[in-house]
Amino acid sequence: MERIRAINDIDTIACIGAGTIGGGWAAYFLARGYKVKVWDPAPDAAAKLGRLIEAAWPALEQLDMVPGADKNAFSVHTDLSEAVAGAGFVQESAPEELELKRKLFAELDAVVDPDVVIGSSTSGYPMTDMAAALAHPERFVVGHPFNPPYLIPLVEVVGGELTSKRAEAWAAEFYEQIGKSVILMDREVPGFIANRLQEALWREALHMIDNGEATVEQIDRSITDGPGLRWPMHGPMLTFHLAGGEGGMAHMLDHFGPSLKSPWTRLEAPELTGELRDSVVAGCDTAAGERSFGQLVAERDAGIIAIRKLAGGRG
Amino acid sequence: MERIRAINDIDTIACIGAGTIGGGWAAYFLARGYKVKVWDPAPDAAAKLGRLIEAAWPALEQLDMVPGADKNAFSVHTDLSEAVAGAGFVQESAPEELELKRKLFAELDAVVDPDVVIGSSTSGYPMTDMAAALAHPERFVVGHPFNPPYLIPLVEVVGGELTSKRAEAWAAEFYEQIGKSVILMDREVPGFIANRLQEALWREALHMIDNGEATVEQIDRSITDGPGLRWPMHGPMLTFHLAGGEGGMAHMLDHFGPSLKSPWTRLEAPELTGELRDSVVAGCDTAAGERSFGQLVAERDAGIIAIRKLAGGRG
Repeated sequence: MERIRAINDIDTIACIGAGTIGGGWAAYFLARGYKVKVWDPAPDAAAKLGRLIEAAWPALEQLDMVPGADKNAFSVHTDLSEAVAGAGFVQESAPEELELKRKLFAELDAVVDPDVVIGSSTSGYPMTDMAAALAHPERFVVGHPFNPPYLIPLVEVVGGELTSKRAEAWAAEFYEQIGKSVILMDREVPGFIANRLQEALWREALHMIDNGEATVEQIDRSITDGPGLRWPMHGPMLTFHLAGGEGGMAHMLDHFGPSLKSPWTRLEAPELTGELRDSVVAGCDTAAGERSFGQLVAERDAGIIAIRKLAGGRG
Repeated sequence: MERIRAINDIDTIACIGAGTIGGGWAAYFLARGYKVKVWDPAPDAAAKLGRLIEAAWPALEQLDMVPGADKNAFSVHTDLSEAVAGAGFVQESAPEELELKRKLFAELDAVVDPDVVIGSSTSGYPMTDMAAALAHPERFVVGHPFNPPYLIPLVEVVGGELTSKRAEAWAAEFYEQIGKSVILMDREVPGFIANRLQEALWREALHMIDNGEATVEQIDRSITDGPGLRWPMHGPMLTFHLAGGEGGMAHMLDHFGPSLKSPWTRLEAPELTGELRDSVVAGCDTAAGERSFGQLVAERDAGIIAIRKLAGGRG
């Protein structure tokens, strides 16, 4: 993009689609002090959106709200050009169908000022596939949130082959400025990062149910009362770094590497080359940083204790 | 098993192996008021175990400790028959090598009273493979914990082909009585449940690192700042039940079923038959129980807020 809107000049954001994700974005943008214009063709869109914002607002008051935020500062439109008029950023959250997204992107491209970046909430379609036929594909970028977008910080940012690097960087900076945890990906891969990981887990779960190996209840409890208690503190890599004891990930891979070939999931393991081993170990060392083994353990344990003490009293 | 020790008659437990898992079990059993006899051939085993128990004790004081628990009520042995003498239950947590487990199980079988159940912490070997050549295989059962065993409630219980149903049920009841969240599996499957799910996620992560698609840091943050914030409250099934909006899992599968074939992980999806669809939907309806969609959302949101407010202040 040659010209691009300055982030600080934006006071209005357009949300395209007012479902669970689009409505969640709208609530978040309102909490960050923006005016929000929502486009949704459904006759009950305004009523549903109002209920969603009401339900989300108390949560937002506890975490990410800025002073002066107004939960009523939104309008709902059925005309696309009316919805995007005056908006300095557009977040698209239409249903997850490739043809629908392509058609909608072309319509958006025609009515949104060319210096405005358009982010897509797609769960996994590469932007290259969605933006192939556009007049201004350079300002279309994936900004993939997680449900509920008003509480989960992660946003995965990645452009397509025709997206400009400036638009990618702008989107990453914009989401960071509004309080999100941004992963700016180097390359496109279907499903991005977190959904590939979730999807592998979900498919293995479906296989187990399909084979009568586990019930829905057992699968959920195996996560909520097991590994799920660790993952808010340490992701899968740092978790296994700790499982290696004081020898960390290096000990883990050098001693349990062979079990990578065990039939413990239907997903085939990659070859554990020396190169892969070294990059995983180096990544964990970087992630651990200054924190000693004991400090990481204390951090994990404090988190598990707090989570287990939460209302609900599970476990 | 014809005769089996009454759970309430047990005052001493033997822990075989004093590494991260075995030592964690020892700390937990001490906190539950048992005397613990630990077998470990390593010369520094007693010193390491002492440090592990010291580090774990403050955490145990906050959650699962019973009155009168004594952190010094343990002894360390290098002679196996000495270690198991007087123990009413044995928890084996030796290194994860099949031949080593087989040999150790035969030695244990020879010195442990035949009315005593022996639980194995194996991460994924089926008991049928480990207990094939034993004189009393009927009292050997998998009791698979998660790191750290003194804080994570989940224990997966499953017997082998030669395990008696009474021993399986006894182990499940024993772990439940000492405060664990038990999943009693109907059938053996390598890796049990949670490790099959974790392993699918871990392998997809290794593939992504191997292909340069994501870094270690990005993978961990994609979980800690994303789906990992939901999993302590709702497992993967109930999470997707909510992602389906008010239509729940039925809406999810009926509308997003085709995306099951998307290349969003390297793990092939099972065929989404009507039967599989119905059993997943029924399982989610059972799991949701009396809780409405709004109640489930409120429960999830309260949990995410509490987790995000934890010390550490991530996100």
